[in-house]
Amino acid sequence: MELVIGTKKWSTWSLRPWLVLKRLGVPFTETLVALRQAEITAAALAQSSPSALAPALKDGDLVIWDSLAICEYLAEMYPDAGLWPADAALRALGRAATAEMHSGFTALRSECPMALDETPRTVELSEATRKNVRRITALWNDLLARSGGPFLLGDWSIADAFYTPVATRFRTYGIALSAYGDAGAAQAYCDRLLQTPEYLAWERGALAE
Amino acid sequence: MELVIGTKKWSTWSLRPWLVLKRLGVPFTETLVALRQAEITAAALAQSSPSALAPALKDGDLVIWDSLAICEYLAEMYPDAGLWPADAALRALGRAATAEMHSGFTALRSECPMALDETPRTVELSEATRKNVRRITALWNDLLARSGGPFLLGDWSIADAFYTPVATRFRTYGIALSAYGDAGAAQAYCDRLLQTPEYLAWERGALAE
Repeated sequence: MELVIGTKKWSTWSLRPWLVLKRLGVPFTETLVALRQAEITAAALAQSSPSALAPALKDGDLVIWDSLAICEYLAEMYPDAGLWPADAALRALGRAATAEMHSGFTALRSECPMALDETPRTVELSEATRKNVRRITALWNDLLARSGGPFLLGDWSIADAFYTPVATRFRTYGIALSAYGDAGAAQAYCDRLLQTPEYLAWERGALAE
Repeated sequence: MELVIGTKKWSTWSLRPWLVLKRLGVPFTETLVALRQAEITAAALAQSSPSALAPALKDGDLVIWDSLAICEYLAEMYPDAGLWPADAALRALGRAATAEMHSGFTALRSECPMALDETPRTVELSEATRKNVRRITALWNDLLARSGGPFLLGDWSIADAFYTPVATRFRTYGIALSAYGDAGAAQAYCDRLLQTPEYLAWERGALAE
């Protein structure tokens, strides 16, 4: 399999399926497309993906051009890897959390872009972004309480892959969850996401770009 | 089961799982929350959904608050209903198309909101929206060619539920796909989406609001 990804310090969408593939431990080749280079980026992505967006997974003739669809494909291909929990209700909640990230939190995403090469600092946030952070804090607390942790659905899952970029944003922009209704569980989870071997490997790659 | 939905003439997110439930033919109750009424809407949605957004599916104690997660839950619950195709590659492509809709096409979505009560008219589109329409036209043609139609993945599926709101936008805003690289197949598919018994039932409901 081949995963086409964008510049590691910026590409939140690429990070998610990359973490899943690393977690699976299956061999894959990695093709990096440099983002933010106007026509050069557009031409490179158009060659790799019908949506002209990163990431895309190539498996033989099949090209899957969306991060969530890639993760679902891998979950089906490796059913024993636990990429989704075995419990149907918990799986449904995990998919809801994942899809909420996939479609939402636009204020946070535009105001606090992932930037792994930047020094953490505290910034002033808009009310729309603060609302996103409150919602994510509540969501993390709810799922951690329900599953028992240490990850959102118990063991590490696709939902955690989707929220790892958020954890980097919280760190980079000095967002402490205690100011958003967290008694400690969400912050500990946030810190935990940034300590997995898979994330640390991505971060090393990002800092070497 | 209970599906919490927003005002039918506007709520694209609600339409998608509603179509899937109707297609399944399973009994469900429908709880309508009137959108665009500021605090009244916010309070009603906060009661029904942890994300304070419509739709939400309630099944016993379980509340699934995202449209795609609801559809995946129903696909798992009714595996013989064909909500996803049996072929793994086609299913992966269908999920990519569905997730691309879930996360993208923001220009089209903001510039051409679903408005089932409005008389179709031709409007001037921004280049960003025109680019979205070209991409959707290409996507539809690709999947229809691969599956053989008449729907995106052959038989009607979750992917069609996700693109039905788009078909209403194309009609309402006078967007003819022949101007976007379509030789006819995508336009015929677009028209077909708006003729399913399930969509027509939703439309009747919307016009009676």
